[in-house]
Amino acid sequence: MEYLDTDSVRLSNDENSVIIIDQTKLPSETVYLSLNTAEEIFDAIKLLKVRGAPAIGICAGYAVYVLAKQMRANSKDELVSRVQKIAEYLGSSRPTAVNLNAALSRMTNTLCNAQGNVCELLEILKAEAVAIHEEDIAMCRRIAKYGLTLVKSGDGILTHCNAGALATSRYGTGLGALLLGKEKGYDFKVYVDETRPLLQGARLTAFELDRAGIDVTLVCDNMAGYLMSKGYINAVFVGCDRVAVNGDTANKIGTLSAAVLAKHFCVPFYVFCPSTTIDYSIPDGNAIPIEMRNGEEIRSMFCKRSIAPDVKCLNPAFDVTPAELITAIVTDRGICRPPYTASLSSLIC
Amino acid sequence: MEYLDTDSVRLSNDENSVIIIDQTKLPSETVYLSLNTAEEIFDAIKLLKVRGAPAIGICAGYAVYVLAKQMRANSKDELVSRVQKIAEYLGSSRPTAVNLNAALSRMTNTLCNAQGNVCELLEILKAEAVAIHEEDIAMCRRIAKYGLTLVKSGDGILTHCNAGALATSRYGTGLGALLLGKEKGYDFKVYVDETRPLLQGARLTAFELDRAGIDVTLVCDNMAGYLMSKGYINAVFVGCDRVAVNGDTANKIGTLSAAVLAKHFCVPFYVFCPSTTIDYSIPDGNAIPIEMRNGEEIRSMFCKRSIAPDVKCLNPAFDVTPAELITAIVTDRGICRPPYTASLSSLIC
Repeated sequence: MEYLDTDSVRLSNDENSVIIIDQTKLPSETVYLSLNTAEEIFDAIKLLKVRGAPAIGICAGYAVYVLAKQMRANSKDELVSRVQKIAEYLGSSRPTAVNLNAALSRMTNTLCNAQGNVCELLEILKAEAVAIHEEDIAMCRRIAKYGLTLVKSGDGILTHCNAGALATSRYGTGLGALLLGKEKGYDFKVYVDETRPLLQGARLTAFELDRAGIDVTLVCDNMAGYLMSKGYINAVFVGCDRVAVNGDTANKIGTLSAAVLAKHFCVPFYVFCPSTTIDYSIPDGNAIPIEMRNGEEIRSMFCKRSIAPDVKCLNPAFDVTPAELITAIVTDRGICRPPYTASLSSLIC
Repeated sequence: MEYLDTDSVRLSNDENSVIIIDQTKLPSETVYLSLNTAEEIFDAIKLLKVRGAPAIGICAGYAVYVLAKQMRANSKDELVSRVQKIAEYLGSSRPTAVNLNAALSRMTNTLCNAQGNVCELLEILKAEAVAIHEEDIAMCRRIAKYGLTLVKSGDGILTHCNAGALATSRYGTGLGALLLGKEKGYDFKVYVDETRPLLQGARLTAFELDRAGIDVTLVCDNMAGYLMSKGYINAVFVGCDRVAVNGDTANKIGTLSAAVLAKHFCVPFYVFCPSTTIDYSIPDGNAIPIEMRNGEEIRSMFCKRSIAPDVKCLNPAFDVTPAELITAIVTDRGICRPPYTASLSSLIC
């Protein structure tokens, strides 16, 4: 992520706060926030100041360490009990992303299984949070390498929402192959869906790819069909928030539409994710909870009040793309193809 | 259109101007504009102050009359020559809608074929413009009656862009069946795509249907797949700007995506239009010109500069839905079903 000054989530030098780039302010302002309390961290996740499943996981890891330090617990039992409560609270900030709860469980399990005095336990928590972060960087690089084998220089790529460095660490998931390809001299033409209502594509993806020197064209979400019908798109690249055992995938609202279009126009549709995003406890997409957000997000984005204030809005934040629409799921452990029940299971064998 | 004070396009009482509702100001302000010059009319069409293929046709009819009066021509030849020039100029304001050029041709042909002095010829032009308007009202009512046979009370209907009374006269095309159904006590649940970039769905359709007392829910364009996957949608209703002889249909950008989704989820997809929208000179959708608009329309709608100003935007205003995705084309002369080459031809037999 050479085109940003630093990682989108990190531990402060004094280790008393989690530092994040406020993604709601990009691209007009690059603001770093220093988060010190559970409420600040909860709100930062809830209000999408930090967003992207892996970035939320990294944030949660550091948050547990920072908040555990503040507890000044006298015993392991006290520390464990209070960390579990904090983890439960933070875990309720966004229901769909698996990485949030995975990171929180990893932190609490590490703590439960560790031996030592409170001071030593805190060091173990810190090491675990750093490990989550570093593993993410390495994981993104592996995903990017696998992804790059699926495309060639000159390809037109459609992407939806943001699965770049801001959402993760360094390379990103869905955008990693494009950023790595750029480093290697590939010449992609990337079309970015603006991604209503919160415009992660317009604000974040177009910004990231443009900074990285990639040829970017922004379109409205409803133009993807036009692009495919004209032959501009050779592949669709998206990240995801949760994958069920059968390959059904939850990602930003609109991903399902892009997948149906890709199927119709015979364009390969690739989902990129760390293998931690696969939720082996969930049989299929029906069991993935879909976060419904406030309709005001749809109504309030425009310069003028464009929408009569009493008109109802429905604002699902995610949708589920069924496995049969997905050409391949690209993970840090390899590329999975249908049937996914077999290929995803093989990742943990 | 009882929920608006007057028609969206009409002749002023002194017959010196065309009065339109400025659709770019709705729903926050209801502003009527009085258009007196060719440039004002050109700009009103180009800048979408008057929009919707039939409304543009009505506006063009009245415009020719109003501008012809101003010419103070001394002979039929002079009048014909100057009206033809004005028609050519106005016809270049928007390339995709067939009604614009159809209305202009109708006015010039009527003038060419008419007999009488200049004063009598102007009266003939006025009568022709009024006829275009009145025929549109009657046509919309017939389309609405046919459309209502395709749905039942309680149905969930998805609509895209605006094909209501603002776009036409009184009932509208795509929304006519819903407005007529409401009068007859049908209880529809209508989902309205906001229709980026210019938000005709959010600003106009949601406003019109809400005023008419219909249960309306606004969604972002990328949520249509979610709605269909959840079984909320029993039919898709859209208007159109031009239909080719084989049934390929040009309509607002995003219509193609909605049609592909409808096909995938086995939801019937209905196109509504006056039979004048069928362009028998065009064999298929490849021959329909697609207007490309300024990318600034995409970038400039939001409260803050959400999008880096140097990011390229692609902004096609329309897309073409191929005939095979369309369940039926509902016209004032009846409902056409595939194969369209036969059923559309039968309308002119």
